[in-house]
Amino acid sequence: MSDSTLKIVTAALIIIGNEILSGRTKDANMAYLGAELNALGIRLTEARVVADTPDAICGAVNALRAQYDYVFTTGGIGPTHDDITSECIAQAFGLPFGRNPEAEAVLRDYYAEGEVTEARLRMANTPEGAILIENPVSKAPGFQVENVFVLPGVPRIMQAMFGGIRHRLVGGQPMVSRTVSSHVPEGQAGGPLTELQARHPDTEIGSYPFFRDGKPGANIVIRAVDAAKADAAVQDVADMLTSLGGKPIIEGSADV
Amino acid sequence: MSDSTLKIVTAALIIIGNEILSGRTKDANMAYLGAELNALGIRLTEARVVADTPDAICGAVNALRAQYDYVFTTGGIGPTHDDITSECIAQAFGLPFGRNPEAEAVLRDYYAEGEVTEARLRMANTPEGAILIENPVSKAPGFQVENVFVLPGVPRIMQAMFGGIRHRLVGGQPMVSRTVSSHVPEGQAGGPLTELQARHPDTEIGSYPFFRDGKPGANIVIRAVDAAKADAAVQDVADMLTSLGGKPIIEGSADV
Repeated sequence: MSDSTLKIVTAALIIIGNEILSGRTKDANMAYLGAELNALGIRLTEARVVADTPDAICGAVNALRAQYDYVFTTGGIGPTHDDITSECIAQAFGLPFGRNPEAEAVLRDYYAEGEVTEARLRMANTPEGAILIENPVSKAPGFQVENVFVLPGVPRIMQAMFGGIRHRLVGGQPMVSRTVSSHVPEGQAGGPLTELQARHPDTEIGSYPFFRDGKPGANIVIRAVDAAKADAAVQDVADMLTSLGGKPIIEGSADV
Repeated sequence: MSDSTLKIVTAALIIIGNEILSGRTKDANMAYLGAELNALGIRLTEARVVADTPDAICGAVNALRAQYDYVFTTGGIGPTHDDITSECIAQAFGLPFGRNPEAEAVLRDYYAEGEVTEARLRMANTPEGAILIENPVSKAPGFQVENVFVLPGVPRIMQAMFGGIRHRLVGGQPMVSRTVSSHVPEGQAGGPLTELQARHPDTEIGSYPFFRDGKPGANIVIRAVDAAKADAAVQDVADMLTSLGGKPIIEGSADV
């Protein structure tokens, strides 16, 4: 439904870790990357959460790197035996895997002599030819191979490292987003909304129900690359909700 | 690494919705289902978040239903034009799609005469032969086709409906889980942990770093079907951490 003259730049995210699937840890990286990428004009189009097994990681990497412009992975690059992301990336690309001298130098510089354990040095292993991603928080770097960016799972560190790779990403036009909220329930607005979506083909109209102040309602979210087209759809949606007895409230931003 | 004599029952989750990918809405269903399924002896092994497009939904359903014992979908079964999950499930199974008389009766019974809009009746459309899943909160049902269970995205409603399908699920042995936490950093414990994992092949040992009270540390999580085997590994991990100068704390539960 997007403007067919504009190329849409896409991305996928692979969240690696049994602890996310077991419910033990809640992922906080998808929402962050979804919003940040959108601000760069890159659309997070799919995310997968996979277990800490080579087949699962390698399979997801190869499926998604062929399908999307960018792939990001989070998790599994620490110093312990269950951190196997880096070697799986090498396997996915068919690249040799081994000690990266630049990464090793960073770690040897950071840790005191006696603290440079073999476990820590595992974090200096990368696929051959990988471009490092600097880690301003805890030093152990991530890396990039072709269109795949390998990041840690800890949100604070991942976010700091994402700041360092923004400039490597070439986006398209960011989507603008407007929200029209009202207490008109979806069951009432649904029919008219279908017609409005058809009348505004270069916008994406989504409806997200809520229950607030004891009453049902919905946030109607209008997204488009062209702000004028978004605004035209917003006006029509607001008029429609008003005609159904609602008191629509319009909120908007250029970066969500 | 699990006991090879025991069948592991697996599940995948498909989270449907642009709003999750854009970062606008945070998913709350994966963590819930991961924990609940584990308590039933079913292992959530993969999750995918896909956009509201037929290709994305249909592709994920067909890939995952062939690969896992159970597939759950959340989202996209409301009354608006962007709710397309149900028809995509029909498409994925090659089934006719249309009004389900039982679901229609439920909705007509719930809504007052004038409130039975065409949009609301969309929620009574299912693939032919689908088994309904009762919705005790807002009535519009989900449904099951073979090993695929179609649930709503709103966590409160999804959880209430999951309660109604528990008895349809046949699990295996639930995993027990124990956590050993200490301020021994992963970089110190990593080497010994690799050996302990090798010595306890019927357990899964995961290490999750934290930064607490100004100091790094890690939660070492030991999971196994056999509680005695988990406990033996816990003891070895605790002894190892003690030998490295840590003061390990052991926590355990049978259902996470």
